[in-house]
Amino acid sequence: MGLVVQKYGGSSVADAEGIKRVAKRIVDAKKNGHQVVVVVSAMGDTTDELIDLAEQVSPIPAGREFDMLLTAGERISMALLAMAIKNLGHEAQSFTGSQAGVITDSVHNKARIIDVTPGRIRTSVDEGNIAIVAGFQGVSQDKKDITTLGRGGSDTTAVALAAALDADVCEIYTDVDGVFTADPRVVKKARKIDWISFEDMLELASSGSKVLLHRCVEYARRYDIPIHVRSSFSGLKGTWVSNEPIQQGDQKVEQAIISGVAHDTSEAKITVVGVPDKPGEAAVIFRAIADAEINIDMVVQNVSAASTGLTDISFTLPKTEGRKAIDALERAKTAIGFESLRYDDQIGKISLVGAGMKTNPGVTAGFFEALSDAGVNIELISTSEIRISVVTRADDVNEAVRAVHTAFGLDSDSDEAVVYGGTGR
Amino acid sequence: MGLVVQKYGGSSVADAEGIKRVAKRIVDAKKNGHQVVVVVSAMGDTTDELIDLAEQVSPIPAGREFDMLLTAGERISMALLAMAIKNLGHEAQSFTGSQAGVITDSVHNKARIIDVTPGRIRTSVDEGNIAIVAGFQGVSQDKKDITTLGRGGSDTTAVALAAALDADVCEIYTDVDGVFTADPRVVKKARKIDWISFEDMLELASSGSKVLLHRCVEYARRYDIPIHVRSSFSGLKGTWVSNEPIQQGDQKVEQAIISGVAHDTSEAKITVVGVPDKPGEAAVIFRAIADAEINIDMVVQNVSAASTGLTDISFTLPKTEGRKAIDALERAKTAIGFESLRYDDQIGKISLVGAGMKTNPGVTAGFFEALSDAGVNIELISTSEIRISVVTRADDVNEAVRAVHTAFGLDSDSDEAVVYGGTGR
Repeated sequence: MGLVVQKYGGSSVADAEGIKRVAKRIVDAKKNGHQVVVVVSAMGDTTDELIDLAEQVSPIPAGREFDMLLTAGERISMALLAMAIKNLGHEAQSFTGSQAGVITDSVHNKARIIDVTPGRIRTSVDEGNIAIVAGFQGVSQDKKDITTLGRGGSDTTAVALAAALDADVCEIYTDVDGVFTADPRVVKKARKIDWISFEDMLELASSGSKVLLHRCVEYARRYDIPIHVRSSFSGLKGTWVSNEPIQQGDQKVEQAIISGVAHDTSEAKITVVGVPDKPGEAAVIFRAIADAEINIDMVVQNVSAASTGLTDISFTLPKTEGRKAIDALERAKTAIGFESLRYDDQIGKISLVGAGMKTNPGVTAGFFEALSDAGVNIELISTSEIRISVVTRADDVNEAVRAVHTAFGLDSDSDEAVVYGGTGR
Repeated sequence: MGLVVQKYGGSSVADAEGIKRVAKRIVDAKKNGHQVVVVVSAMGDTTDELIDLAEQVSPIPAGREFDMLLTAGERISMALLAMAIKNLGHEAQSFTGSQAGVITDSVHNKARIIDVTPGRIRTSVDEGNIAIVAGFQGVSQDKKDITTLGRGGSDTTAVALAAALDADVCEIYTDVDGVFTADPRVVKKARKIDWISFEDMLELASSGSKVLLHRCVEYARRYDIPIHVRSSFSGLKGTWVSNEPIQQGDQKVEQAIISGVAHDTSEAKITVVGVPDKPGEAAVIFRAIADAEINIDMVVQNVSAASTGLTDISFTLPKTEGRKAIDALERAKTAIGFESLRYDDQIGKISLVGAGMKTNPGVTAGFFEALSDAGVNIELISTSEIRISVVTRADDVNEAVRAVHTAFGLDSDSDEAVVYGGTGR
């Protein structure tokens, strides 16, 4: 058999019992003949507790020291996991991100992996050990300082190691059974997806699905590492994310026309009102936003009112960046020449994702019909080759997700996805 | 000014308040014009909590992984301390033992420092930073694995760094005001010692004084690094430990004839009864003990009873090693040929330490007289050039310490040490 990289999140190793349960699962993989490399996050609330301590000693924790602090969390979980595995009679060695060769840039708190040199990990598994690696952390190439990878960093560590070690699969263990056609907390009839392409998973991740982060999927796609997202609490098969459909039993799992419905209520909408409708205006606005290092999501420019020569430009962005964006625009008011700004954080985004959309006319129409039938008003629309997103009132989001999920035959009672005909999308 | 190494123990950084208090003290040293390198232990009970976690996942934690686990403790305290210093407007950088160049052998859980290559620390302080270094930990020379230095390891880290950086002084901050003439919990009138030689401090440390461990003092003596033991909770001067008496105001502090009285109730006594009184017998006994890796303390061989040709040999050792020693001797019973073993863990040791003893006859006599007057029975006696130790019943120890402390004029009410005349020791 080949080499498997498994990643366990904080909820899977929240306490000693969790660590022992995970150890047993890892040993099972080893007994099945695999070489096993494990990436582990900090136990349960450890990271939050460390952040709390940092805030007690300093209101603005410094990047380098904050990373040094946070990386203590994985150090604890990985050492305990190695001990628990040894206690089951198998050899295990734990490695920090630095020891595992996870080389990053120097941007503390959200470093990017620039190279992985897993010589020690390779040696360790070749000697018959299970190698346990701290997720979320690395060492900077220039200064040899400890860095952390930011949100979702452990998943990225796992995929990056899988790529560097040429692993057969990267298994991401979490507290849900896999990727669903919609958030099961909102849509009771949401179904687990057996297989989804990298592209569709990327769109779902960008659209609010929290199971895998965009960054991790992007890395896996670049190096063509199949990801298997599954629960550490059950023995069920989860969701495969890969380039090629997986084989289950005798038949290939085909991707459904529609992969799923994602929603996101973490964004706000800013409308720049009364912008002169002339070339270069949008560029000035979005340069101001970019200079403030704010990532925006959807952008819509209204049709100009011929009578005034003025137009409105709306865009969405994370709520957490709202204040900063407003400040940046106010500072650039003279340069832009707008009349006023409107800020709205009571919005929600619903996205329908599926590679099949490209070749199935009528998906867009079906989407809008479903929203209309549910009485949901649409404020912004944005589309890509494999996704349609709309912005609605935040209060309408759950109802909208359920309506679309049902309309596209994704509810678990129905066995087949509906095929849409009709007048183009 | 020069370079100062300061070490803060776990009780000094037990919580966020403690860390902020220590940060202020460090910044004061920096403001006084010193380059400052700080060695810090894990916060308060962190290490115990980590050990507890380890025991929950594995009854016999493995050395390598146990060290990986424990070193998370200093990582937390050092990062927080660096943040707290930055919050006071000064630059600080934290370093792991490995980053600080603390190179050790590969004996996990009680590694010995074999080299210190503090290039990064030197660069950091030369750039104007306060360097914060994790105590208690290093990296093994051959395997590049994380190691811990065992009990008292942070003090040793501090002294070793002070030596490698050619520091002017190594300040050991603790929760007591310095080294006392006796344990203040036992002797209310114990006095703080202003200065004590390395040799006397070594004897006190071997005899039960817990303020500094033997290993740390030995390292300081070898590299001639003056140690200043003081409280992190007060601004008082503490105790200087060095080769040469320190200067206080206009006059040199002279070492007293007697440095102090130490006691120790952590030992047990084993008596090997009925050993043939012939050459080589003791060697067989202590080879058996040494092969079991047990350190013994005092050894006494009784005068042989001429009628039987048999003798008894008694020795003391840490209570924690008692079971192992008895097992080792039982296994060697045929080789040794003794009649029986007696084990006694209700003993205590009282030691009088002072370089002045060498040239002051009558110290030994005065010591025994004080014990006699207090009605304390002596079971074993052992002497060195600068120490007399006796073993008594454990119940008698506190009374014996007080009697000796008073007899030698060490009580804080009396201003001068008594000079002893009389018939040699």
